[in-house]
Amino acid sequence: MIFQEKIAGVMESHDSFVCVGLDSDYTKLPEAVKTKQYAQYAFNQAIIDATHDLVCAYKPNTAFYEARGVKGIQELKWTCEYIHEHYPEVPIILDAKRADIGNTNNGYVSFAYDYLEVDAVTVHPYLGKEAIQPFLDRKDKGTIILCRTSNPGAGELQDIKVEGKPFYLHLAEKISKKWNENENCLLVVGATYPEEMKQIREVTGDMTFLVPGIGAQGGDIKATLEAGLNSNKEGLIVSSSRGVIFASNGEDFAENEREETLKLRNQINQYR
Amino acid sequence: MIFQEKIAGVMESHDSFVCVGLDSDYTKLPEAVKTKQYAQYAFNQAIIDATHDLVCAYKPNTAFYEARGVKGIQELKWTCEYIHEHYPEVPIILDAKRADIGNTNNGYVSFAYDYLEVDAVTVHPYLGKEAIQPFLDRKDKGTIILCRTSNPGAGELQDIKVEGKPFYLHLAEKISKKWNENENCLLVVGATYPEEMKQIREVTGDMTFLVPGIGAQGGDIKATLEAGLNSNKEGLIVSSSRGVIFASNGEDFAENEREETLKLRNQINQYR
Repeated sequence: MIFQEKIAGVMESHDSFVCVGLDSDYTKLPEAVKTKQYAQYAFNQAIIDATHDLVCAYKPNTAFYEARGVKGIQELKWTCEYIHEHYPEVPIILDAKRADIGNTNNGYVSFAYDYLEVDAVTVHPYLGKEAIQPFLDRKDKGTIILCRTSNPGAGELQDIKVEGKPFYLHLAEKISKKWNENENCLLVVGATYPEEMKQIREVTGDMTFLVPGIGAQGGDIKATLEAGLNSNKEGLIVSSSRGVIFASNGEDFAENEREETLKLRNQINQYR
Repeated sequence: MIFQEKIAGVMESHDSFVCVGLDSDYTKLPEAVKTKQYAQYAFNQAIIDATHDLVCAYKPNTAFYEARGVKGIQELKWTCEYIHEHYPEVPIILDAKRADIGNTNNGYVSFAYDYLEVDAVTVHPYLGKEAIQPFLDRKDKGTIILCRTSNPGAGELQDIKVEGKPFYLHLAEKISKKWNENENCLLVVGATYPEEMKQIREVTGDMTFLVPGIGAQGGDIKATLEAGLNSNKEGLIVSSSRGVIFASNGEDFAENEREETLKLRNQINQYR
């Protein structure tokens, strides 16, 4: 199934814009989980079982798995398989922030779509459309391009003025008009910058945004929804990672995560 | 040992600016190697044994290993271990083109420097200095930042004019003046664009460039050396991947690769 249709379906059936980021940093896992042989996988299973009916997507970030080398990649693969097997309706966004020259990107495309069988990948724009074409060519998958990121120093390059307009707006226009031929482009737009999000919404029509930065990074839900909803009152995948998955360090961590996810879903739905 | 000193030492002792890119795409391996249980590792071992005294660095690109999931990452790790054990003088550049927000980059730093124990990593600049600080903080390692890449569509974003100057030049100046506090920044500047390289050389002093694009991508050696050498007649790490490692598909592939590497080294040295 096409990514955009798959996520739209689960957004409706789960009444949720919440994407839970599986940023399962081994060093931060609850003590009760850390002692298990496959700790990242066990942790993810518990989170997924506790939240699957409340989310529109899961988003593992590769950095937290790569940090552990082969072990981590194995547990990432098992995590994806677990979702495919038990909750096949929920799409997986691989937060990999990859991008190389075209020929080389085929390797990343294989990793994401053939090996892990995820539904979408985040990518860097800096090498241009021609380079990321192997991602764009996968019509059934989502190519989620970094546009205005959520980190404190995001503006250093992204805000540089080009003909009076910030760079990220030029990029947003370019993606929306030229890169989106297969209608499979999405943008990363951080919740920590609602003003910027509003401008990006104005130039991209109804394109969907993946929105990190709610929770630990300080993004405001109301401001984000007001700035980012599209003309159908949709178009936002609101990602929370640390705020949800490390809500509790005790043995009841999964219950706590469910509560946090439910709270976030309801807070978001208030402003839809 | 500090990366810059390590590579300078081996450039001198091997009289070489050649970095062999271990882009060991499984699908392109010689038939004689493909049948082996650990084909990518076996292929790399053969190349490394055949070329170690002719190179200044090896540069595995993660995409070709990730494409095979756990197996590929395992063989990438063995490849790095093999170099550490047999040719510890030769630095390893991990061509990973990573970059996430600061907190998350710690995972990639662990993968590169703790797990694989490489000497340098390539990174995307788009999230700004604040985000890549975990890389920059590793004073002993090289942070090699994408500036003007070698792909045909590189100019789409990188050439956008900012106050009359292309974006990549602004970036080069910024990196050279503000990101390089630990003197561990290098730039990726493609051989396919010698004019652009010359401009970047003018604004970055003696900073070292990693130069892909010679060989399969069509970059010219003479033009590259004339445009890129710094005031000490150094400062270039010339990377060749497909042109060297897939020089032959026969059983004599390693000998052929040695010949191609030797040829490239000597061609470069002609213009130094």
